[in-house]
Amino acid sequence: SRSINLAVIPGDGIGQEVVAEGLKVLSAVLPQDVKLETKEYDFGARRYHDTGETLTDADLDALKQHDAILLGAIGDPSVPSGVLERGFLLKLRFAFDHHVNLRPSKLLPGVVTPLAGEPSIDFVVVREGTEGPYTGNGGTIRKGTEHEVATEVSVNTAFGVERVVRDAFARAQARPRKKLALIHKNNVLTFAGHLWTNIFNKVAAEFPEVTTEYMHVDAATIYLVTQPERFDVIVTDNLFGDIITDLAAAVSGGIGVAASGNINPSGEFPSMFEPVHGSAPDIAGQGKADPSATVLSVALLLRHLGYEAEAARIDEAVSADLAERNGRPARSTSEIGDALAVRVAG
Amino acid sequence: SRSINLAVIPGDGIGQEVVAEGLKVLSAVLPQDVKLETKEYDFGARRYHDTGETLTDADLDALKQHDAILLGAIGDPSVPSGVLERGFLLKLRFAFDHHVNLRPSKLLPGVVTPLAGEPSIDFVVVREGTEGPYTGNGGTIRKGTEHEVATEVSVNTAFGVERVVRDAFARAQARPRKKLALIHKNNVLTFAGHLWTNIFNKVAAEFPEVTTEYMHVDAATIYLVTQPERFDVIVTDNLFGDIITDLAAAVSGGIGVAASGNINPSGEFPSMFEPVHGSAPDIAGQGKADPSATVLSVALLLRHLGYEAEAARIDEAVSADLAERNGRPARSTSEIGDALAVRVAG
Ligand SMILES: CC(C)[C@H](C(=O)O)[C@@H](O)C(=O)O
Ligand SMILES: CC(C)[C@H](C(=O)O)[C@@H](O)C(=O)O
Repeated sequence: SRSINLAVIPGDGIGQEVVAEGLKVLSAVLPQDVKLETKEYDFGARRYHDTGETLTDADLDALKQHDAILLGAIGDPSVPSGVLERGFLLKLRFAFDHHVNLRPSKLLPGVVTPLAGEPSIDFVVVREGTEGPYTGNGGTIRKGTEHEVATEVSVNTAFGVERVVRDAFARAQARPRKKLALIHKNNVLTFAGHLWTNIFNKVAAEFPEVTTEYMHVDAATIYLVTQPERFDVIVTDNLFGDIITDLAAAVSGGIGVAASGNINPSGEFPSMFEPVHGSAPDIAGQGKADPSATVLSVALLLRHLGYEAEAARIDEAVSADLAERNGRPARSTSEIGDALAVRVAG
Repeated sequence: SRSINLAVIPGDGIGQEVVAEGLKVLSAVLPQDVKLETKEYDFGARRYHDTGETLTDADLDALKQHDAILLGAIGDPSVPSGVLERGFLLKLRFAFDHHVNLRPSKLLPGVVTPLAGEPSIDFVVVREGTEGPYTGNGGTIRKGTEHEVATEVSVNTAFGVERVVRDAFARAQARPRKKLALIHKNNVLTFAGHLWTNIFNKVAAEFPEVTTEYMHVDAATIYLVTQPERFDVIVTDNLFGDIITDLAAAVSGGIGVAASGNINPSGEFPSMFEPVHGSAPDIAGQGKADPSATVLSVALLLRHLGYEAEAARIDEAVSADLAERNGRPARSTSEIGDALAVRVAG
């Protein structure tokens, strides 16, 4: 008999609320014979304030035992900027080698986009997750003086770039349009840019069916708002991926529906799935948060674990629910979760 | 009697065409008593192919003699990515200490935006121009092997950050809304991020009338498409500024109307003005390029040299011309330039 042993990290702010709905839908969609075990972890601002801890070695050992991780959101204005990001979110991505940061963007019927016309948007960004300017490399001298110098070092390795480029080519190959765009800034960041571009071109030779293009990150932001239908799969560096996936989320219906997976493809460590949005402390505890992004993250999680049919049922349920929302009275977080649970149980 | 001694760099592709119109409008707007001298320089792809040179010390000495520089566009697919960017564009910005990279975004009446609704957009980005990941710091080891490592170092100094932050506060103070947003990624790039944030907060104390906010660069891309009216003045790092100003240009009518100034505020070196768009080799020589961005760059140039009334006349002429375009047959580059020249002389 099959089983899923899930680590659940509700986190801060609306994280608690949206994760509850994600689990509700997960339970509803799973076949009877799949045993779902969940264990909740209290990471986030409260634990940091209580103990000073963000993510200990013992925590990592515990998380390692799970098949996957579902995360709500981490972050609170009471914690200085960077502490939970570097101490928890990025620490986990690096420790579990989440090098494929997968962020699909699909404009679903009925969803409002800030773009005029009716663009058809359906692409996925493969963002590198363990290198680039995110390594924490760099430092500060003469801090607080008029002679302060602060550096940030973007580290890029052939090993790290090639594995994510390969992953992106394989994804492009498996999609109907078979298109892959590399986004970088190789005319200015020439060292990293040439590494990315050369590896991209080398791997491209092995995927002759995939149509490729290269685009500077600045130009990419223009295309994302003027021709988003142009994109199928995008592969990019950690920082550029961070920036363009927020823009991509905005144009394809907002962060209320943007899901993501921090994936370790080899399965050596559990992968983590989370909505792209943050903890939104301003609306926390009011039942106002849209759990759709978390529910779609559960679909990514199921797909990653091999439950393709169940993942597809969730995608369809969210899509149908969004299509029906237009003009209807706003529902609470749990009302949306209930409706989705009914649909997937269907 | 007054005079302007201008260096003109038409450059590549459509650069030639748009600069011709910029000069046409400049001549038309200047009062009789202002003597305009121009000297053309042949920088760009052709010179690189002919001589291998991009920008020599002698070139820099010659350019230094001018009051300002007007640039069309530099770049051609026949030149490897990075050669003209690092060898000419960035070399000039660094050599002439163009630390204030000024990029206004204003959605003019009649101009089509990819955004739905009728957003009111009127902000200016002050992008740092001489530091950050643009310094060329970094390198590659084991190039071309599976063990290649490439680094890019973002260098940020208190000196470099404070001067551009002060410039941005002064600009915000002089505008009706008096708002300034710092855009960075201080939760991940904590070394550079703290330097930027601390200096921003320190200088803010000297400008009590300016309302400030901080925004992560990823979140900023969302606001630029969902709430662009929120912005008044933005100050940001070199790379983030590169990215968000292309997005800003896209939402406020496209790069056909986006102007920029690479400014050395002390006047120690001449400042350079250029459209944000590139050389667009696909439409070069066909009279299809919109010279408005170059003409608006001429307005920034005039304003920088103290010709405020003339700059305002150009802004109004472009605005009026754009307002009239709707539904009219497309005009050529020189027809638009002619129309603008008539208006400013008017
Ligand atoms: C919170 C932050 C560390 C994170 C990132 O920059 O990766 C977030 O913006 C994201 O995109 O997941
Ligand atoms: C061409 C390139 C070097 C340049 C930059 O990155 O600054 C351009 O994109 C710009 O914005 O002026």
